[in-house]
Amino acid sequence: MIPFEKNRSYRRFYEDVTIPEIDLRKMIDAARLSPSSRNVQPIKYFISAGAELNKKIFKTLAWAGYLKDWGGPKEGEQPSAYIIQLHDKNIAPGYSCDHGITAQSILLEAVDLGYGGCIIASVKREELSQILNLPADLDIINVLALGKPKETVVIDDIKDGDYKYWRDIDEVHHVPKRSVDELIFSFNKI
Amino acid sequence: MIPFEKNRSYRRFYEDVTIPEIDLRKMIDAARLSPSSRNVQPIKYFISAGAELNKKIFKTLAWAGYLKDWGGPKEGEQPSAYIIQLHDKNIAPGYSCDHGITAQSILLEAVDLGYGGCIIASVKREELSQILNLPADLDIINVLALGKPKETVVIDDIKDGDYKYWRDIDEVHHVPKRSVDELIFSFNKI
Repeated sequence: MIPFEKNRSYRRFYEDVTIPEIDLRKMIDAARLSPSSRNVQPIKYFISAGAELNKKIFKTLAWAGYLKDWGGPKEGEQPSAYIIQLHDKNIAPGYSCDHGITAQSILLEAVDLGYGGCIIASVKREELSQILNLPADLDIINVLALGKPKETVVIDDIKDGDYKYWRDIDEVHHVPKRSVDELIFSFNKI
Repeated sequence: MIPFEKNRSYRRFYEDVTIPEIDLRKMIDAARLSPSSRNVQPIKYFISAGAELNKKIFKTLAWAGYLKDWGGPKEGEQPSAYIIQLHDKNIAPGYSCDHGITAQSILLEAVDLGYGGCIIASVKREELSQILNLPADLDIINVLALGKPKETVVIDDIKDGDYKYWRDIDEVHHVPKRSVDELIFSFNKI
């Protein structure tokens, strides 16, 4: 049973629960064993598991666009690790859909190990690139925030096409998902 | 244990082993439960599990670019089903990395159910769009070929940066993968 349902986008964590290096390496191994367009494997990873650098990375990220009154996880609920996807332009000029494939592998492996995370695309890339001291041939793709989840996320049926996630008064995070029937445009058996 | 290692790109199948509708729907459910950028969920799916349409789809695909002497799977070893990813432009103008995320979910679920497949990006999209009679607001992203694998695929360590897959004289398919250490550009613990 692959934990697709348990693999929600988590944005609040037990910040003091660190992720051991061996587990972070298992996540990279999951990415490594994933399909890569023409098998080129042009994505590299910057891992941060240290509190000092984590704080700097945190400041370059924007959280949960639909939750207008929420500025992101507070002190103590922030990610305990980050895996930053980098495009190695020395290897290939593009990366096709490898970034999505590997992000999903990393998150599924994280959940399987008892953690969880969130893909963050809203990143101050230039600022973060300077913080990480990246060479010019490595571009930041997305940032995966990771930790031990400290929130409940539930899946709801989508209503009237409104896909915006929201939080109820008990701080439960609701995510409206389309049905399997809506996703299947056509099913041909002939 | 998530079957990352068993989830290889398979291109030869037992064509007579069909995939029941319930299993194909489970694969769509895996995609459904996957992260979606801003939770917009703009990818729809055309499923073909019928021999007649499968033959037509097959003719629009190019297989295994590095195997110059191989024109793709022969009669009897072709996919028994296809899941075609479609971008529903009515929902959103783009789809971020959703296509990679959902492709990986579908393939992992396929492997978990005893099947396997391959993401095919080399597609005659205009021709296939006509065959499927798609409306103008649905664009073909990629085609996932699926079936019961009829080949052995092994992972090798990459040598001298040569990432091209190849087949040995016993028809075993070899895929050179970078090491975890090569993929990790930096690991910060401070």
